[in-house]
Amino acid sequence: MGRAETINSQVDSSAPIGLFDSGVGGLTVFREIRHSLPDESLIYLGDSARTPYGTKTASTILSYARECANFLVQRKVKLVVIACNTASSVAFQALKDELPCPVVSVIEPAAQEAVRLSPSGRIGLIGTSATIASNAYSNLIQELRPDAQVFSRACPLFVPMVEEGLFSGAIVDLAVDRYLSSLRSSHIDTLILGCTHYPLLKEAIVSYLGEDVRIIDCGRAASAVVRNLLEERELIAPKGSKPQFGYYVTDTGEQFEKFAAPFLGYDSVKAVRVHRL
Amino acid sequence: MGRAETINSQVDSSAPIGLFDSGVGGLTVFREIRHSLPDESLIYLGDSARTPYGTKTASTILSYARECANFLVQRKVKLVVIACNTASSVAFQALKDELPCPVVSVIEPAAQEAVRLSPSGRIGLIGTSATIASNAYSNLIQELRPDAQVFSRACPLFVPMVEEGLFSGAIVDLAVDRYLSSLRSSHIDTLILGCTHYPLLKEAIVSYLGEDVRIIDCGRAASAVVRNLLEERELIAPKGSKPQFGYYVTDTGEQFEKFAAPFLGYDSVKAVRVHRL
Repeated sequence: MGRAETINSQVDSSAPIGLFDSGVGGLTVFREIRHSLPDESLIYLGDSARTPYGTKTASTILSYARECANFLVQRKVKLVVIACNTASSVAFQALKDELPCPVVSVIEPAAQEAVRLSPSGRIGLIGTSATIASNAYSNLIQELRPDAQVFSRACPLFVPMVEEGLFSGAIVDLAVDRYLSSLRSSHIDTLILGCTHYPLLKEAIVSYLGEDVRIIDCGRAASAVVRNLLEERELIAPKGSKPQFGYYVTDTGEQFEKFAAPFLGYDSVKAVRVHRL
Repeated sequence: MGRAETINSQVDSSAPIGLFDSGVGGLTVFREIRHSLPDESLIYLGDSARTPYGTKTASTILSYARECANFLVQRKVKLVVIACNTASSVAFQALKDELPCPVVSVIEPAAQEAVRLSPSGRIGLIGTSATIASNAYSNLIQELRPDAQVFSRACPLFVPMVEEGLFSGAIVDLAVDRYLSSLRSSHIDTLILGCTHYPLLKEAIVSYLGEDVRIIDCGRAASAVVRNLLEERELIAPKGSKPQFGYYVTDTGEQFEKFAAPFLGYDSVKAVRVHRL
């Protein structure tokens, strides 16, 4: 009763997909979904007035996530993607229970892919302090594959580094060494980038860990799950639709627009400010 | 009419001083005031649910600062210290006009001290992106000393470094070099630490710039102004008062309590959570 799947069975396939994140990081998820589902309209909300979530506590993050999701639901999205690992780690179950549409987290898809791809079951995980402290990834991986071993590390400097445009160089290399040396010594064969900012550090990470370690990008994994869900429910946008893209932020759009380019991989976006969620 | 000074002339000298900041940084200001005015009771509010302010825009920061200040006024403080450079840079004038008690920013005192102490007038300034972008320091310094030259640099990695407990070592040294090399080449003789986190990096900064560069700690400068203001208005707490210290946060207290020790320089504090400002 009251599950999203049944209530939402009448929505229009041309409705947009909604994504939210604490800021700009979720744009890497946006990019993957846009790439894999080019006919879909997308609405993105960045809660930039309260960013970052990753250093805050579960109850605060949950209340913020609820406000973000409700904003998207009011815009009649057909599916909500929690494009933020921190919010996914604390709010996925609650939003799945509460929202009138399907909800995709970035954690389950990445955990499933890691379990599937890891030969030895020695899986590394990096993310924000809140994501790591939640144990959401570790619990799920243990459930999916009881013999797996998860080696996790919070990397608090990675987000500010990326937001300063530092993707390579001496500071990045030292920070990568600081955070990943214990994972490398643990001989992980798979690493989950458990934060949507981290794909921008992928080159530095690969060059540190070596090409043999499989890197799981949570946005890419989530986009495959979004596609499957929409296909199952016959909610894929009609071929040849003219997709529309909307960007909303809770702070002014300037910072967002400045950061958006490297995350999205294209030139410029205009964001609309929402004054109160 | 309606100026804080007249309205507040009847308050009790035993009332507490109120301080607010976006998080833990303002505790360095708290520490300086406690050290210089040991009989005063202090109430500290850290808006940790919305921290940091330094990457946000002026209008967002102003609305947060108003909420913080009103929280303190409701607790009948005799004076409000904006213990945050970012909030001082955008909200000082508004709060001075609006609050029923005197308001001290951390910017004016530091700017005045820099102008007074700098032999050549070549003054360096470091702070968050928002503080630097506001030009609050530069404008004030130019006003106080028209022949001064201000060389400023935003240092976005310093706050997350300090909050990770990184006060020295290779990453700190590289970040210090990244941000301060242009100031060193400009032959500054005085440097304003325009962020309340930065006193914890003072050693690394001094060792990079050399002992000859005067370092201005904005918390220390503000505590002198607080003392003067209270003396002028005969609001100094009676000698031998038993001062009380209250800590409030908008997220849970855990993170705050963890970070508080290095900022305050003493062991442990208990913080009370405020659910909505």
